[in-house]
Amino acid sequence: MLSVWALAGIGEVTAGSDLVALIGDAVDASGTPLRDGDILVVTSKIVSKAEGRFVEAADREDAITSETVRVVATRTSPDGSHVTRIVENRLGIVSAAAGVDASNTPEGTVLLLPVDPDASARALAQGLRDRFGVQLGVLVSDTLGRAWRDGQTDNAIGAAGVHVFDDLRGSTDAQGRALAVTLPCVADELCAAADLVKRKATGMPVAVVRGRADLVGDLDLPGARSIPRTGERDMFRLGYDEAYAEGYAAGSAAR
Amino acid sequence: MLSVWALAGIGEVTAGSDLVALIGDAVDASGTPLRDGDILVVTSKIVSKAEGRFVEAADREDAITSETVRVVATRTSPDGSHVTRIVENRLGIVSAAAGVDASNTPEGTVLLLPVDPDASARALAQGLRDRFGVQLGVLVSDTLGRAWRDGQTDNAIGAAGVHVFDDLRGSTDAQGRALAVTLPCVADELCAAADLVKRKATGMPVAVVRGRADLVGDLDLPGARSIPRTGERDMFRLGYDEAYAEGYAAGSAAR
Repeated sequence: MLSVWALAGIGEVTAGSDLVALIGDAVDASGTPLRDGDILVVTSKIVSKAEGRFVEAADREDAITSETVRVVATRTSPDGSHVTRIVENRLGIVSAAAGVDASNTPEGTVLLLPVDPDASARALAQGLRDRFGVQLGVLVSDTLGRAWRDGQTDNAIGAAGVHVFDDLRGSTDAQGRALAVTLPCVADELCAAADLVKRKATGMPVAVVRGRADLVGDLDLPGARSIPRTGERDMFRLGYDEAYAEGYAAGSAAR
Repeated sequence: MLSVWALAGIGEVTAGSDLVALIGDAVDASGTPLRDGDILVVTSKIVSKAEGRFVEAADREDAITSETVRVVATRTSPDGSHVTRIVENRLGIVSAAAGVDASNTPEGTVLLLPVDPDASARALAQGLRDRFGVQLGVLVSDTLGRAWRDGQTDNAIGAAGVHVFDDLRGSTDAQGRALAVTLPCVADELCAAADLVKRKATGMPVAVVRGRADLVGDLDLPGARSIPRTGERDMFRLGYDEAYAEGYAAGSAAR
């Protein structure tokens, strides 16, 4: 049995807010003490806010550019009013607008992703383990679009004390044959489950997931930085138009 | 509060199995009656098995080819031993091997996806609504890899009586598509949450999700066929190598 619930009463987070205190107090107020094996899923937005990652809204395009390591694909809307930029950001995550967020931020500002979400998760996990004396895990989540599927899901961009993959390689199916290629990204699945109770409109940025204590472990486990697939192993490192253009230029030059 | 649990005791599913009866009996045996608003997440594998979608294993490559509408990308492993084919299948879903499954099937056979997973979901939802007299929803799930992220997550390939998107603004454009920038694909998130309790090695192919009754509705709601993004709106319709090659050929010819 998996139980997932959101914490009420965290309130507005501002630069310098003590997230361990805010989340810890919300846990106390909930009347449901944390246990060994609980996993807290924290929306990256409040981590960014606490870390003061605001920039002026006039700089939004500059902010996206500065967070971008590589442009993957660019598409102008049919009416020319809007340009979608799919980019790889400095964390290796491929997404629209490099994670730069213009919703639910103070007027005139946008919000960048945390500097190092794995480190943020680790500080939260350490602080909350110390406060409550339980072995819990922390995931930092962000909302990402996907290739080939409409809509978005929440995914892990930071992790501490949680196995991000449930490594089934080497285990067997009911017939005793190896489940060779199955590597569930449980960190992303946990963030998806948490999104179902956080529900973006309600302002509850932290959820608790109880029931997969087997995934919780040492704070030195690999973080969410191990999830993005970049470089040689990425079969989709450019959009169709961009890859075609590179090929076209090379084909023209080769003759 | 979201609660997610797997149903024990469904047992082996074979061609012609009555899934409404098998799942209904497992619900009865669980001691937890279903309620209005519950969502059942059913692994596509048992739907395929009940529908007799087996083909002989000698035909695996042929089976993949026959399920493929379009090859998106092909990559040979560095040692040359294995070819990965990312393809769009007849359901519009982009995945490896067109969903053809060789694990947990009788020796010498592979399993194709259900013919029409939305119709399968609808038949299950109707049958279980009739049996239990509750308004429940059904999702049919499959395990999919992703561009740019390692590992897999479970996603919805069939849906009945469940809103597949949580339209946060509720408004639609002239084409009937949601205008909201944020459009959580809750069907995929529900399947991800269910995977956390089904756990592939344990042979529990059905989970119940309780706590998002707001997502359950009429059986005529759009199915999971509305999730894949194909055609003009797909910025990643070919892998880098394939798009580059198309461009190269055109560039060579244009001189």
